[in-house]
Amino acid sequence: MTQQMNRRIVLASRPQGKVRTDHFRLEEAPLAELAQGHFRVRNLYLSIDPYMRGRMNEAKSYVEPQPLDEVMAGGAVGEVVETKHGGFAVGDKVTGMFGWQQYCDTDGTGVRKLEGAQVPLTAHLGVAGMPGVTAWYGLNKIIAPREGRTIVVSAASGAVGSVVGQLAKLAGCRAVGIAGGADKCRYVVEELGFDACVDYKAGNLHRDLKAATPDGVDGYFENVGGEVLDATLARMNPFGRIAVCGMIAGYDGQPVPLKQPSIILTMRLLVQGFIVTEHLDVWPEALTTLVSLVAQKKLRYRESIVEGLERAPEALIGLLHGKNFGKQLVKIAR
Amino acid sequence: MTQQMNRRIVLASRPQGKVRTDHFRLEEAPLAELAQGHFRVRNLYLSIDPYMRGRMNEAKSYVEPQPLDEVMAGGAVGEVVETKHGGFAVGDKVTGMFGWQQYCDTDGTGVRKLEGAQVPLTAHLGVAGMPGVTAWYGLNKIIAPREGRTIVVSAASGAVGSVVGQLAKLAGCRAVGIAGGADKCRYVVEELGFDACVDYKAGNLHRDLKAATPDGVDGYFENVGGEVLDATLARMNPFGRIAVCGMIAGYDGQPVPLKQPSIILTMRLLVQGFIVTEHLDVWPEALTTLVSLVAQKKLRYRESIVEGLERAPEALIGLLHGKNFGKQLVKIAR
Repeated sequence: MTQQMNRRIVLASRPQGKVRTDHFRLEEAPLAELAQGHFRVRNLYLSIDPYMRGRMNEAKSYVEPQPLDEVMAGGAVGEVVETKHGGFAVGDKVTGMFGWQQYCDTDGTGVRKLEGAQVPLTAHLGVAGMPGVTAWYGLNKIIAPREGRTIVVSAASGAVGSVVGQLAKLAGCRAVGIAGGADKCRYVVEELGFDACVDYKAGNLHRDLKAATPDGVDGYFENVGGEVLDATLARMNPFGRIAVCGMIAGYDGQPVPLKQPSIILTMRLLVQGFIVTEHLDVWPEALTTLVSLVAQKKLRYRESIVEGLERAPEALIGLLHGKNFGKQLVKIAR
Repeated sequence: MTQQMNRRIVLASRPQGKVRTDHFRLEEAPLAELAQGHFRVRNLYLSIDPYMRGRMNEAKSYVEPQPLDEVMAGGAVGEVVETKHGGFAVGDKVTGMFGWQQYCDTDGTGVRKLEGAQVPLTAHLGVAGMPGVTAWYGLNKIIAPREGRTIVVSAASGAVGSVVGQLAKLAGCRAVGIAGGADKCRYVVEELGFDACVDYKAGNLHRDLKAATPDGVDGYFENVGGEVLDATLARMNPFGRIAVCGMIAGYDGQPVPLKQPSIILTMRLLVQGFIVTEHLDVWPEALTTLVSLVAQKKLRYRESIVEGLERAPEALIGLLHGKNFGKQLVKIAR
């Protein structure tokens, strides 16, 4: 019997500043025999997410560092192709942290079975997966939106931002996005139904944001940091609430200062950082809501899909530079 | 009958940057006849507080601007010298926003009668007054200290900071102060009982704060902003909580940026600004606790007292430059 081979991508070295494709290495290695109590997943789609950049640093970050020379960790959907585990059968569709590789052996820890077909498989990596729950948590548990209030979200066309704004609309709020480029802004307003979207690349961020938020900003979902955070802080209303989910502008290089922290005091703001995987207790409620809203077409989404495991590094690099449009995925099998 | 005269200090012009004594004007004006339902207070002590600097700006701040050519607003303790109000009798000791003047006529709104003599009169402007409640609120309602955790407070020898650290000690925490100069630091440790105090003027803030917080920082009560905030942010533990009470470093001039806002995300911090006068519901509970602790000598405090109404401006300027030691008061009558 020929031993089955596994192609995988490992972190070859840690970037100082910008990530390049040569920080990764594609390897091929034989798969060991499946252990008792485990099952083998063949990955179909990999999820590419901003948090991955943080893990590539050695320094203590909000996630454990990605070890060198080991498979890049990351979420994926796949199907069970071999099993020695009573809870999972061959053919089951599953999602979990299967990593940047063709096959993953697992004992089922942190794996969710995707039952039924209410929504497409890839939705479980985006709108009805970790990014969707991230949006749900930050909006409902930190911002706590109230009808008629103005909610702003940066990276508004992305996997998280697009859900934040649509949930805010469903809660009766005014939803205002910030995104890069006219195409993304048009999509955010015309397809996702936000009330307005400001193009931060147009060169008039402060003025345009002011025009889009005539009553100020009551809640802000932060995915970006940097200039966008400065501009939004300046529009906050008293007792405004800011959920800090990402600081993508600062990942790739030096820290980006916050220009006017005193606004936190003068406007009596609440600013809270969070990581959705530390709040697993809310996942079932959030996922049930999100799957239902997607199935009812009340939540729309878009995906950027590249094909081929070997293209995962460039997909991540593109994401870090805002080149994706919606949820970034890598299709590695069908 | 000779008409009674009132000496008072008004804001003459708005400072751009540093406050000077010539931004104020001492005036003398006759007192009108006391209105029905009002009573007249003769001020004994004026309270000098950092928030006053914010009110001197025209721009929207966290407090309403102080109007030009009107009596500088501020808390005071005094005694009732004339009354046409059923609830207040001549001789009553009272505290309220009586302003920088000898006499204040009031209908009693926001005035508290100081009954009994559990604590000295001046304590009602400091440890058992607004600054004490500020410390109590930020510590208990935002930081929510737990036994064994490390709580840091800046401006630790001041009216608010000194109470924060002592309450933290009473809650079983490690209390670490940050103050300017060896004398203040010695006072904070030896007289107030903090576990440590870092002298930010000694030139090794980051190193000294690290040494004083070997287990990191779980709660931070921010009175200062600027470099002190940057240094403390870098020591925060995951899920740390920061109560933002003051940004005194930024009052007197340009905004001071926050160098590494991404720490809010990486450490999943909660950062919340507050103004204690917006939480009047907690004042009775807080004041009862504080008065009792002062009476039991479990809360210690120090006062800097200058004499003479005309010296109120210089007292405020000194406070803004950290020249006071403990609560800054102006004695204007005995």
